[in-house]
Amino acid sequence: MTDSIFSKIIRGEIPAHKLYEDDFVIAILDINPLSEGHTLVITKEPAETLDQLSDDHAGALGHALPRICRAIKKVTGCTSYNILQNNGSAAGQEVPHVHVHVIPCYPGRGTPVAGKPDKDNGPGLEKQWHPGTLTQEEALELGKQIKRLL
Amino acid sequence: MTDSIFSKIIRGEIPAHKLYEDDFVIAILDINPLSEGHTLVITKEPAETLDQLSDDHAGALGHALPRICRAIKKVTGCTSYNILQNNGSAAGQEVPHVHVHVIPCYPGRGTPVAGKPDKDNGPGLEKQWHPGTLTQEEALELGKQIKRLL
Repeated sequence: MTDSIFSKIIRGEIPAHKLYEDDFVIAILDINPLSEGHTLVITKEPAETLDQLSDDHAGALGHALPRICRAIKKVTGCTSYNILQNNGSAAGQEVPHVHVHVIPCYPGRGTPVAGKPDKDNGPGLEKQWHPGTLTQEEALELGKQIKRLL
Repeated sequence: MTDSIFSKIIRGEIPAHKLYEDDFVIAILDINPLSEGHTLVITKEPAETLDQLSDDHAGALGHALPRICRAIKKVTGCTSYNILQNNGSAAGQEVPHVHVHVIPCYPGRGTPVAGKPDKDNGPGLEKQWHPGTLTQEEALELGKQIKRLL
């Protein structure tokens, strides 16, 4: 079990801009936001990655998200947003404690510039999408193997 | 209420490589995968975006995810993966029906090449991370407004 910076925030040992708390999750503003309103929803269970999270905590995390997204949309006025959750260092996970990024999109805004307020800064999550094509053979083989475990 | 391609897949009117199904979600292989094992977890409730999803369906979606991730990890051998859920066209949402991408990471693999099997293709989700800095003033003002709605 890790004792991450998020565990310290949950216990109140490190200050944070807390937006929401229930028995299972807290939500805080990300202090290095990709865009205005960038929020982290953090599980109280200190699992490192989503696959290690217990069913109860995973359900409660899912349950809390729409409500938090509604509040962020209403206050920021964003009409689009991404939900991103990184698992493992190759996926960009920096703190080994499950956390979900809620990242509003503002297509007109540029890359953040130091000293400029966040409300003028940051378009949101920048990603490339280079899809391949699933062959019938691979789909059948991979699908069979995954289904067997579910 | 939309009747998307995903509603048709849920009703069995369009074929798909189904991995998992319960009363609230189905999971299928993405036919244009960013990497081997790229899976879509789709809510049976035909909400367009996460903020429109009912509490019950959101909880059930959260509950199903770790189990599906464990199976994908085990079969593909990936050690890192991203969970991505896009809301709104500016966020890259293409089908207006809530779906969660589970995208395994394979750092050594290149951009997909036509005709090459998926297991040799696709590093996963490619993203840039250009964070800004949240000022104390903005955090207090934004935090106060969001908290009021939660």
